[in-house]
Amino acid sequence: MVKLAPSILSANFAALLDDVIQVEEAGAEYLHIDVMDGHFVPNITIGPLVVKALRPQSRMCFDVHLMIENPELYVEQFINAGADLITVHVEAARHLHRILSMIREKGVRAGVALNPATPPGAVEYILPLVDLVLLMTVNPGFGGQAFIPEVLPKIRTVRQMLDERGLNAEIQVDGGVNLDTVAAVVRAGASVLVAGSAIFDSADIASAVRRIREAAAMDGSDS
Amino acid sequence: MVKLAPSILSANFAALLDDVIQVEEAGAEYLHIDVMDGHFVPNITIGPLVVKALRPQSRMCFDVHLMIENPELYVEQFINAGADLITVHVEAARHLHRILSMIREKGVRAGVALNPATPPGAVEYILPLVDLVLLMTVNPGFGGQAFIPEVLPKIRTVRQMLDERGLNAEIQVDGGVNLDTVAAVVRAGASVLVAGSAIFDSADIASAVRRIREAAAMDGSDS
Amino acid sequence: MVKLAPSILSANFAALLDDVIQVEEAGAEYLHIDVMDGHFVPNITIGPLVVKALRPQSRMCFDVHLMIENPELYVEQFINAGADLITVHVEAARHLHRILSMIREKGVRAGVALNPATPPGAVEYILPLVDLVLLMTVNPGFGGQAFIPEVLPKIRTVRQMLDERGLNAEIQVDGGVNLDTVAAVVRAGASVLVAGSAIFDSADIASAVRRIREAAAMDGSDS
Amino acid sequence: MVKLAPSILSANFAALLDDVIQVEEAGAEYLHIDVMDGHFVPNITIGPLVVKALRPQSRMCFDVHLMIENPELYVEQFINAGADLITVHVEAARHLHRILSMIREKGVRAGVALNPATPPGAVEYILPLVDLVLLMTVNPGFGGQAFIPEVLPKIRTVRQMLDERGLNAEIQVDGGVNLDTVAAVVRAGASVLVAGSAIFDSADIASAVRRIREAAAMDGSDS
Amino acid sequence: MVKLAPSILSANFAALLDDVIQVEEAGAEYLHIDVMDGHFVPNITIGPLVVKALRPQSRMCFDVHLMIENPELYVEQFINAGADLITVHVEAARHLHRILSMIREKGVRAGVALNPATPPGAVEYILPLVDLVLLMTVNPGFGGQAFIPEVLPKIRTVRQMLDERGLNAEIQVDGGVNLDTVAAVVRAGASVLVAGSAIFDSADIASAVRRIREAAAMDGSDS
Amino acid sequence: MVKLAPSILSANFAALLDDVIQVEEAGAEYLHIDVMDGHFVPNITIGPLVVKALRPQSRMCFDVHLMIENPELYVEQFINAGADLITVHVEAARHLHRILSMIREKGVRAGVALNPATPPGAVEYILPLVDLVLLMTVNPGFGGQAFIPEVLPKIRTVRQMLDERGLNAEIQVDGGVNLDTVAAVVRAGASVLVAGSAIFDSADIASAVRRIREAAAMDGSDS
Repeated sequence: MVKLAPSILSANFAALLDDVIQVEEAGAEYLHIDVMDGHFVPNITIGPLVVKALRPQSRMCFDVHLMIENPELYVEQFINAGADLITVHVEAARHLHRILSMIREKGVRAGVALNPATPPGAVEYILPLVDLVLLMTVNPGFGGQAFIPEVLPKIRTVRQMLDERGLNAEIQVDGGVNLDTVAAVVRAGASVLVAGSAIFDSADIASAVRRIREAAAMDGSDS
Repeated sequence: MVKLAPSILSANFAALLDDVIQVEEAGAEYLHIDVMDGHFVPNITIGPLVVKALRPQSRMCFDVHLMIENPELYVEQFINAGADLITVHVEAARHLHRILSMIREKGVRAGVALNPATPPGAVEYILPLVDLVLLMTVNPGFGGQAFIPEVLPKIRTVRQMLDERGLNAEIQVDGGVNLDTVAAVVRAGASVLVAGSAIFDSADIASAVRRIREAAAMDGSDS
Repeated sequence: MVKLAPSILSANFAALLDDVIQVEEAGAEYLHIDVMDGHFVPNITIGPLVVKALRPQSRMCFDVHLMIENPELYVEQFINAGADLITVHVEAARHLHRILSMIREKGVRAGVALNPATPPGAVEYILPLVDLVLLMTVNPGFGGQAFIPEVLPKIRTVRQMLDERGLNAEIQVDGGVNLDTVAAVVRAGASVLVAGSAIFDSADIASAVRRIREAAAMDGSDS
Repeated sequence: MVKLAPSILSANFAALLDDVIQVEEAGAEYLHIDVMDGHFVPNITIGPLVVKALRPQSRMCFDVHLMIENPELYVEQFINAGADLITVHVEAARHLHRILSMIREKGVRAGVALNPATPPGAVEYILPLVDLVLLMTVNPGFGGQAFIPEVLPKIRTVRQMLDERGLNAEIQVDGGVNLDTVAAVVRAGASVLVAGSAIFDSADIASAVRRIREAAAMDGSDS
Repeated sequence: MVKLAPSILSANFAALLDDVIQVEEAGAEYLHIDVMDGHFVPNITIGPLVVKALRPQSRMCFDVHLMIENPELYVEQFINAGADLITVHVEAARHLHRILSMIREKGVRAGVALNPATPPGAVEYILPLVDLVLLMTVNPGFGGQAFIPEVLPKIRTVRQMLDERGLNAEIQVDGGVNLDTVAAVVRAGASVLVAGSAIFDSADIASAVRRIREAAAMDGSDS
Repeated sequence: MVKLAPSILSANFAALLDDVIQVEEAGAEYLHIDVMDGHFVPNITIGPLVVKALRPQSRMCFDVHLMIENPELYVEQFINAGADLITVHVEAARHLHRILSMIREKGVRAGVALNPATPPGAVEYILPLVDLVLLMTVNPGFGGQAFIPEVLPKIRTVRQMLDERGLNAEIQVDGGVNLDTVAAVVRAGASVLVAGSAIFDSADIASAVRRIREAAAMDGSDS
């Protein structure tokens, strides 16, 4: 069954905990924490202090998505703040093998993210080192963008690359995931779905989570 | 009378609005919003989305302190999010005169900040353009650091520079301001006091605000 | 029939319009405008003001080749100046999908350029988004360099990638294109030919244009 | 008598030589060549190729104003292209003493430029090394901006610094110089006046040059 | 027969020449000189002056491995200091084709290095230009790290790419090469082995060299 | 009495220890270790491994001069390698107060260096934090350059700034110090003299050290 990772980017920053509790109670497995530094992407969002403030209040997998330059300088701060999984962008990590190893050596799961234009071959040699491959289906930086369908074949390719190597890393998809797109995404091979506005902009978060999950289960069944 | 600017850096990021409401009710005039990008300073904190989320809930002066590189790229986002005052670091702004003018042209107050090691002469030629000079009394990046007393003469120098030119910009001091240091700071010429842990780490925020204000008023009276 | 894109890099910068008029009258379809910032490449050439000055005087397709870092910061200036087509380097665009979309959304054609060492796989996932793929056959930065024959198989590969996807983006080739090389280039699949010194260093521009076109037509006929 | 330096930034980039000839015939002593790289300033203008194209056609002092990062990497290209004077920004040159020495060792005059916000103390220790101090009276990047009067005291200060040391470097002023401002600028101590739109946007360039010169002579006489 | 390239990174920097003489007498063909700038990798090691000091004392192939940003700015210094072979990282060279050509034009052999995570396709189009492909089997920056076995298939792939094109560039492997790993490395296709601690941390350098060579010959014989 | 700091930049990098022993036996108090990263200055020299290799062999004060960008990232490596004094450039340290405090907190002496063009006011506010002020009398990057006499007044100014504040930091001078210049330097207020070629290019190091010291003592006596 696919897992849900509500994206904090669409939550209410004036009262984050309320939203976090709601998605946790609705059964979301991950909390997708969008960290932006204004350099890797044209937006600044949140950092380790926010992770630290939420940590004692939640048991969800804190899934920290680093959309920052020089991620190696911040990995430790986020681990200390309570991250369970740290994902770095292949476009931002010159020594990708080192940073992934470093994350794992500290007992935290490691992920690698790819921008929409980045070919899957870019991560071929570090697949054994990752617990998750994050495929962006929007250009990172902002919430509420439209899903880029051209990424669907990339999901299938990465699923195949993992299968061929006997690896069971998760495939996470981030960007424009909603009731209209979740089918295709799961069918292509995604196992962890980031959803932002589709969840937090809904009047009833629990129901939104349930409906995405149903749509995913339904559509993915025949994959 | 000096104004108080509680620093959001020491607030509870899981439930910011609660803390913001408390300091506003306690009479704080400014909300000091510490924006860090992980490049200008070794920490990442919060960005425009947080400002935007709090804005409808508060009438305080939103005092956005940009501890970021290339601040000219983000001024507009913060103004749109609801900033009343934007302060940029002289060490981060190659075209300081341009960015200050740009902020003011958009109807927002403009401030300039100086790191502890930066001499006041660095801002001499833009004093007519600013509504506030922020003198850091700790190295920017983290809350809870100790006050650097070597900055006191710089406060006096900037006060004198403003007076000589007949300018009435505020002098803001940020870092280690508490009951022990507020006296000296106000006496030296500060008019807006940033305080973080001294306020938010207190069991009773209203009382903490009142006591800082009293100490400031008392000690500043003979300046 | 292939199109010709005389490169302004080899024109007379003291009297650009004269040269522009000559190539336009000689039947060139594009004006290739080489923008260099001294950072992406080791040369500085021209910017938006030059585009703007020439625009009212010409109906050619203004084909702006951005050999600059952070191209996303300049796309708008060049569009306002009158660009019809903007090409960015895959090596310079971290968010390639975003910048190409941005160009198209503003009603301008979008191209992507590859340095001689860059493999075609780097652009596989954005092919549906581009109107032109520019394959450099010299290292960008200067006019008058010798054609790199090792790029020929890359032209064929990109042609095949486009055909397989049913896409009809142009393939542009830039560097060392002249009477000796145009045959091979067209045969490999190029449809828009940049030529600099081969045109502007000629005593008779109209005749130079005609001869390149003839050589191209001749050699390409059997492709 | 003050010297005039028409700024190429306001000339017609489609036919530069025509404008250059006009200002030379009108008696301008310098041609102010505004080089921008899109990194030091938010605009890209022209580079060495333009200087090289104009050089054989003019005897004016080619006064190259480098508004670029890492100017040390381009000094040689501009000297080879025909620069007579090269001015670098103090804000862009980490090893200012080295680059100024390097320029002079190659037999070219050396200048240093200061942004509006930069205090004159920043260049105190290299005054013996320069032939010209350029004080910006607008923020560099674009033509047609309004004069910043707050820079006037800086002109006087630099004049005094030079006089006290017995140095006879020129003081150049760039930005918003026109019939309304030239008086104050010359009175404050400027000896070389950059003028862009005041000259090139005029219907009669020769007359515009003459009137600026008259206004300068008149107002400067009582300085 | 494979060639040995003792890595200076593990030699005694207080008395380099002694170690260099020992490995040369022991029959090593290359001296692997690890240049780090603290930017491309998180360590600073040595530069041209060290190469220059050793050059007159040795006839080994001085194999300079540039783990630096902007390698194009330093190639000439290292050639003048006495390098026989210069290897640049594909991750550090935006204009890879240009820098490799530049090295060869100066009569020095050229190599290209790949970090553990970098796919071999990144160098496909410059293989005809290189004398050596260096595959990192540790993350560059420090001596004494453990061999990354996931790189072995990459060695085989590059060997195949070279064979298919009829190219006879060397394949060099750097990182964790010792008696335990040399077998697999040679079998996969490596022809030049960098070894640091395996040689210099040995009590008897000559014997260490001999044993690595034996192990290589033995294991490689059946490749 | 002034102290001598032979600069390792002019020593024999093939056999450093021999030179280090010689200067130590000749009575030099400091070993000036010139660390260059190829980014702050246009040369790469040596790093922590060299410091570490020499440390057990010498009791001199290891005086590490960081001519590098982002010095805060390397301070700890150099302290662990055995530095007694670490000097950072004011032009390279955005948070100068923080890095100096960090060095001292680790029990190592802290220095600040100024390029020839940098005014002494740049360090006014951190003088209480430093054990040494290093005034460059050449542009950093290479050995064997000529002394810049324009720096002499800066030495006097810094001496006066220290005296006025009752501080007893050393003043170190680096660049072109030899028998011809040592007099003026000491008279102006320097207390630690870096000398490179004047010592290591001499046939008799001990005698070179003695003669510099004599010249210094003689000329400084009347200061």
